[in-house]
Amino acid sequence: MIEPRDVVAAKRDGRELQGDELRAFVLGYARGEIPDYLAAAFLMAAYLNGLSDDETAELTRAMVESGATLPLSQVSRPKVDKHSTGGVSDGVTLVFAPLAASLGLAVAKLSGRGLGHTGGTLDKLESIPGLRTDLSPDRLERQVGEIGCAVAGQSEDLVPADGALYALRDATATVDSIPLIAASVMSKKLAVGTDLILLDVKAGSGAFMKTPQAAAELASACVRLASKWGRRVRAAVTDMSQPLGSAIGNTLDVAEAVRLLKGEERGRLRELSVAFAAEALRALEGEERRGAAARAEQALDSGSAAEVFARMIEAQGGNAKVVDDPWAVLPRAAVKRDVRSAPGYLAAVDAEALGRAAAALGAGRMKKRDPIDPAVGIEFFPKIADRLERGDTIAIVHARNDDDAAVAEQRVGAAIEVTDWQVEPPPLVYGWHGDETARD
Amino acid sequence: MIEPRDVVAAKRDGRELQGDELRAFVLGYARGEIPDYLAAAFLMAAYLNGLSDDETAELTRAMVESGATLPLSQVSRPKVDKHSTGGVSDGVTLVFAPLAASLGLAVAKLSGRGLGHTGGTLDKLESIPGLRTDLSPDRLERQVGEIGCAVAGQSEDLVPADGALYALRDATATVDSIPLIAASVMSKKLAVGTDLILLDVKAGSGAFMKTPQAAAELASACVRLASKWGRRVRAAVTDMSQPLGSAIGNTLDVAEAVRLLKGEERGRLRELSVAFAAEALRALEGEERRGAAARAEQALDSGSAAEVFARMIEAQGGNAKVVDDPWAVLPRAAVKRDVRSAPGYLAAVDAEALGRAAAALGAGRMKKRDPIDPAVGIEFFPKIADRLERGDTIAIVHARNDDDAAVAEQRVGAAIEVTDWQVEPPPLVYGWHGDETARD
Repeated sequence: MIEPRDVVAAKRDGRELQGDELRAFVLGYARGEIPDYLAAAFLMAAYLNGLSDDETAELTRAMVESGATLPLSQVSRPKVDKHSTGGVSDGVTLVFAPLAASLGLAVAKLSGRGLGHTGGTLDKLESIPGLRTDLSPDRLERQVGEIGCAVAGQSEDLVPADGALYALRDATATVDSIPLIAASVMSKKLAVGTDLILLDVKAGSGAFMKTPQAAAELASACVRLASKWGRRVRAAVTDMSQPLGSAIGNTLDVAEAVRLLKGEERGRLRELSVAFAAEALRALEGEERRGAAARAEQALDSGSAAEVFARMIEAQGGNAKVVDDPWAVLPRAAVKRDVRSAPGYLAAVDAEALGRAAAALGAGRMKKRDPIDPAVGIEFFPKIADRLERGDTIAIVHARNDDDAAVAEQRVGAAIEVTDWQVEPPPLVYGWHGDETARD
Repeated sequence: MIEPRDVVAAKRDGRELQGDELRAFVLGYARGEIPDYLAAAFLMAAYLNGLSDDETAELTRAMVESGATLPLSQVSRPKVDKHSTGGVSDGVTLVFAPLAASLGLAVAKLSGRGLGHTGGTLDKLESIPGLRTDLSPDRLERQVGEIGCAVAGQSEDLVPADGALYALRDATATVDSIPLIAASVMSKKLAVGTDLILLDVKAGSGAFMKTPQAAAELASACVRLASKWGRRVRAAVTDMSQPLGSAIGNTLDVAEAVRLLKGEERGRLRELSVAFAAEALRALEGEERRGAAARAEQALDSGSAAEVFARMIEAQGGNAKVVDDPWAVLPRAAVKRDVRSAPGYLAAVDAEALGRAAAALGAGRMKKRDPIDPAVGIEFFPKIADRLERGDTIAIVHARNDDDAAVAEQRVGAAIEVTDWQVEPPPLVYGWHGDETARD
């Protein structure tokens, strides 16, 4: 008989917890038998005293055991999952899922909603009229089998302990702990049966991890955790010192994804989507990376990835015409206002501030269950190191009214730094983590 | 506007909290506005990262502000309070209060109930038929004015934050923290208007603090805290490596107190009661310590302290005949069983085990609100270093039935260590802490 308070006392004293102790605690909490206050004391002790790799793995195992899993055993293609730790204008999933599917892989993506300054894939997709993301496990699996991809909301049966623990961490200032983040991220990935997990760990002003070092620590913790489960994972630490694409909104993101999937747009969002697709082909199909990347570029430029996107939208009840002509289908904001530039070099962007400015327009939510406005947001075009001329349109604000637009315009201006001297652009990918380096 | 979660985050990060932050947090918690889980996270962060002297003082101030105070402004005698951190056979209060009153001082003692292996003064007193400890503040003050002493239960209006925080600490494995203990102990003392606070910080097998070093740390923390309030305190670190007196029970404790107050019994419990009374006379009346101690001994031997005890019992509705003939008044246990000794020297006593054995007989409670049986308990006679002969009665078990008695007898045997070689007795008082040393 394991006493939950003894588990807290052990973690408080820095003792390494055993699997059965963590299991009893996590499952007891998920079942509502352990009160919030005891779990809060545990989380603070774990935050301050840390969790070893073994403890993190056992914690994650218990979290997965707290609910149902999604084995996807009926899907015959090689299965890949992709997860981002969250950023601004981080539209990779919308591009990656159909792209990977068009390359013969299967992507059953369980996504979340936006919170704070980061957007959520579900919110973006739901801005397409008719589209539903509440797919049952059966329907999700069938769609992945038929089309190669699906993007759906995570069912509440999957890793319920994570939802409960995350809410408590958020309420008790214990979010920012590498092992607790790794357990939260990976529990949801490990509960789904896949052959490869790709992680996009963002670093920079728009990310939860502000430095590449911190992001690398989290990437490494996630990789070690997956390897204890015998699961393959490749984790990239990528730049979030500026918005990845140009769209910060929901319809704006969908329109951008369509342009990328049709090969109409270049840039860092395309590059990263291709890099993830190539990594998946390399790890799962043994393809050489350069050839795999070329094949992914070809899938975008030929329109075959866009075609899969249209089929996915249709299968989920959405209006697939959005792929032909986004703005014929998507709602538009009432007010559009250009933001003009001062001359110089773009030296720095506060990506979080841009995310918050878009959220303030109505594109995001500060609290769970806040409503969002799909049409509003910000397009922000230049990248760090770009030369700007006076009067260049650096951003377009999409707002409900002039007052909102004026505020957002000011916030965009305040979020950037323009200098007289040239600066170096940040790398797109800081590095890869995972057990596959021998094959590079 | 202070956000409680920011207070938790600050303590988590080791930042020194300001008075207004601690006040907002503690008062918010006492008012029920801050949920248990957030307070639990705070307590664990404070446990692990510590609290500075200033933080401890501000925490204590907020705790006192959470409720009513008891200024005792109508009492004209010099007022002294005495508090023990809890031990086994720790009957000092029952002796000290009437003793100090018989010497011209005023003692308004707010006591608690026993929990775990430690007895509670209220439980002991309530074993006297008719005696009530639920005195209103007015009645308490009037009684102290008339008789010089009263022993009552702490009203729930006094420092309500302490009760709430203590229960949460108990539930979340955050009890064992010097600053949190000091704040808890001292908040209740500082809420009562007295001229001197005497603390008896117990160290040893029967105490919460197992070593004199740990006890000295707590004593020093309490002294520093009181000095920040401009209050006089003297704290003794005293031995609890064995029961202080011989009685471990409730009626047994009362009977022992009567014997001491009538000068019929010598030993460590008498010595310590006299030492506290002498310290109070020294600090409050400027008496020289040796003379003060002699005056206290005289008050015991002359029966004048016993007389005050009888008046106090009567004032609180109890049968004062208990002072003339305790066993004519007090309930007795059905079974009495002698525990016999092996030959040798008493080398060690697990006082906590003796306390638990008495509690198991029914003398104590493991959970708040458990009922207790006033008549049962254990008398344990020898002291460490005593020479024992085969067949000496070292203890008498007072039990409800033979089965209980047999179990207790075994537990007494297991709680002691008898050796062939002589051992040194532990000191009674390890040392005094406080701001009065210059006058020694």
